[in-house]
Amino acid sequence: MSGQREPRGEEHRDDDASSAPDLDVVLSSRVRIARNLHGLPFVNKASEDQCEHVVKTTRHLLMHIPSNDRMIWVDLEQSSSHERQLLVERHLISRQHADNNIRRGVAVAENEQSSVMINEEDHVRMQVLRSGLQLSDANEACRSMDESLGNHLEYAYRERWGHLSACPTNVGTGIRLSAMLHLPALRLTNDIDRVRQAAKDLHLAVRGFYGEGSESTGNFYQVSNQVTLGRSEEAILDEFEGTIIPTLVRYERAARQVLFDKHRRELEDRVFRAFGMLGTARMLKLEEAKKLLSSLRLGVCLDMLRETDANITMNTIDNLMLLVQPGHLRQHVNCTISPEQARGVRADLVRQILIGD
Amino acid sequence: MSGQREPRGEEHRDDDASSAPDLDVVLSSRVRIARNLHGLPFVNKASEDQCEHVVKTTRHLLMHIPSNDRMIWVDLEQSSSHERQLLVERHLISRQHADNNIRRGVAVAENEQSSVMINEEDHVRMQVLRSGLQLSDANEACRSMDESLGNHLEYAYRERWGHLSACPTNVGTGIRLSAMLHLPALRLTNDIDRVRQAAKDLHLAVRGFYGEGSESTGNFYQVSNQVTLGRSEEAILDEFEGTIIPTLVRYERAARQVLFDKHRRELEDRVFRAFGMLGTARMLKLEEAKKLLSSLRLGVCLDMLRETDANITMNTIDNLMLLVQPGHLRQHVNCTISPEQARGVRADLVRQILIGD
Repeated sequence: MSGQREPRGEEHRDDDASSAPDLDVVLSSRVRIARNLHGLPFVNKASEDQCEHVVKTTRHLLMHIPSNDRMIWVDLEQSSSHERQLLVERHLISRQHADNNIRRGVAVAENEQSSVMINEEDHVRMQVLRSGLQLSDANEACRSMDESLGNHLEYAYRERWGHLSACPTNVGTGIRLSAMLHLPALRLTNDIDRVRQAAKDLHLAVRGFYGEGSESTGNFYQVSNQVTLGRSEEAILDEFEGTIIPTLVRYERAARQVLFDKHRRELEDRVFRAFGMLGTARMLKLEEAKKLLSSLRLGVCLDMLRETDANITMNTIDNLMLLVQPGHLRQHVNCTISPEQARGVRADLVRQILIGD
Repeated sequence: MSGQREPRGEEHRDDDASSAPDLDVVLSSRVRIARNLHGLPFVNKASEDQCEHVVKTTRHLLMHIPSNDRMIWVDLEQSSSHERQLLVERHLISRQHADNNIRRGVAVAENEQSSVMINEEDHVRMQVLRSGLQLSDANEACRSMDESLGNHLEYAYRERWGHLSACPTNVGTGIRLSAMLHLPALRLTNDIDRVRQAAKDLHLAVRGFYGEGSESTGNFYQVSNQVTLGRSEEAILDEFEGTIIPTLVRYERAARQVLFDKHRRELEDRVFRAFGMLGTARMLKLEEAKKLLSSLRLGVCLDMLRETDANITMNTIDNLMLLVQPGHLRQHVNCTISPEQARGVRADLVRQILIGD
């Protein structure tokens, strides 16, 4: 990756995930801030030189702002498609950013808890990721990064609107909060559509595992605030972290309890079959692996796998969710593999990690 | 069962099945002889009194002919539907014989290797079952039974045609030979239709697990001779046991070797997943159980499960094929159960027998 360290691709981002709050339902929290540089057109209107200027300016700053985490710069124009794929799979850049073909890059913290995309939809999009429900913490870290950059860059800003952004939904604070939720029980009890509608009424976006335009696989839903204009950052954060996400967490937990109390055998059938198949399959498609891992995660959350010899934790499963992806598998075997070979490698890796086979 | 012993429903019929010839492909051999009594109309034309007369005459004889095996008489009119279901599942009577509502019965050998249906399609239909490919042996036993009965009964017989029968395909020797074949590899290599066509050209009938009109589940096919008129018994037996079935066995073994040599991973995926699911499912439908047991049987035949701790033999699997059926499950729990409950009982029983769970 431009001669610098690659994301490791073999383990989860540094973070004491095992004790993360509400990890049973909230896989991760993310805060993202969109900023643009004053006096330059938005990325989609910028010339090659202007894009280059943005990259040069921000890259220098990002490598030198004081931070707890050393940042690694990845020049996306010069990186291989495999490297970009890895970054997408680890949620460090968007699919759009990976696939674009303008001058662009990303600064990734060594611990992979934060990244700053340069020339994605906006000139600067910084994000902080945390395990479980830790939005305040992520928000603080993201604002601190924003302030550090803001001390050296002049942001595009209007008194009346706040921060300007290429997309109207980001104008204002420019902050987007999101939480990746695991909602298998609400799906099984057929309440997920009611929840989606309620979220829509609250002006929330509900998306799949890779954000905008992606499908939900394995019952993972990314929930995020949609409106940033005309409201204070604090009010948005308070409502999102203090009310909205905890409500969804409560709904999901209640649905899990209903399954556990009233449909125990069906639930056990689903969970133990998932365990059985993950532990024996010799070929696994990505979609199937995610669905099975999702069922297994539900079982682990409900402490149903105690009786098996395998010591499977949520972290093991969440880590596997990353590792079963195509880019990670390629990284694992360290050579190009066909989709069919990937199915074999995926199954072998899952068995090895889950049951030491 | 009319105050007499029920089929045990808990174990396979007595037979040293582990060493039965060609058991990897031939689940069982069956010889059946159809006979009618002289001077009485066929069953479908007989009056109640005439049916009663047939039952009375034959029952007395069957209970008293000298035989290695003690025979147990089951009066099907007085038996419960559950008892009849068990007999069907153990291949001791036909579905048609179970469902009829005339005076009828069956004599079952204590070791369940033979049975004599009275007033099924013909007045007398005796059959002998053996594990693996043992048609000569079964034939000898069946002929011996036929001779014993023939010493005391006058059979309907014409010099020109031989033995008369209610169905033209049985006229002549009245003997039908059949073998229950397990052909999963021919199915997987898509050669099964070619085999079926070849069998048809040889005037063989290819049917499902329960004979006429039943579908093949788990890749079990009952192959039997169709024409008994105008050929000697010996010629039919020689061709069937000496040429036809061994050819099918060779085809299946060759197909298994192709899968093992050229599609190892797909094969392992199928076999180990079957093992994984059977060992973890908490609910199993009959069809699914049979399909999974079929895949597992293929794996055992190819010695693929050596590495697992479970010591699974073909006998274990063939026994499970019987035990997972609805009547056997009801017998196991000793009370009436709903289809949904049966799915749970089935899964629990399979886990218990396969992996001692």
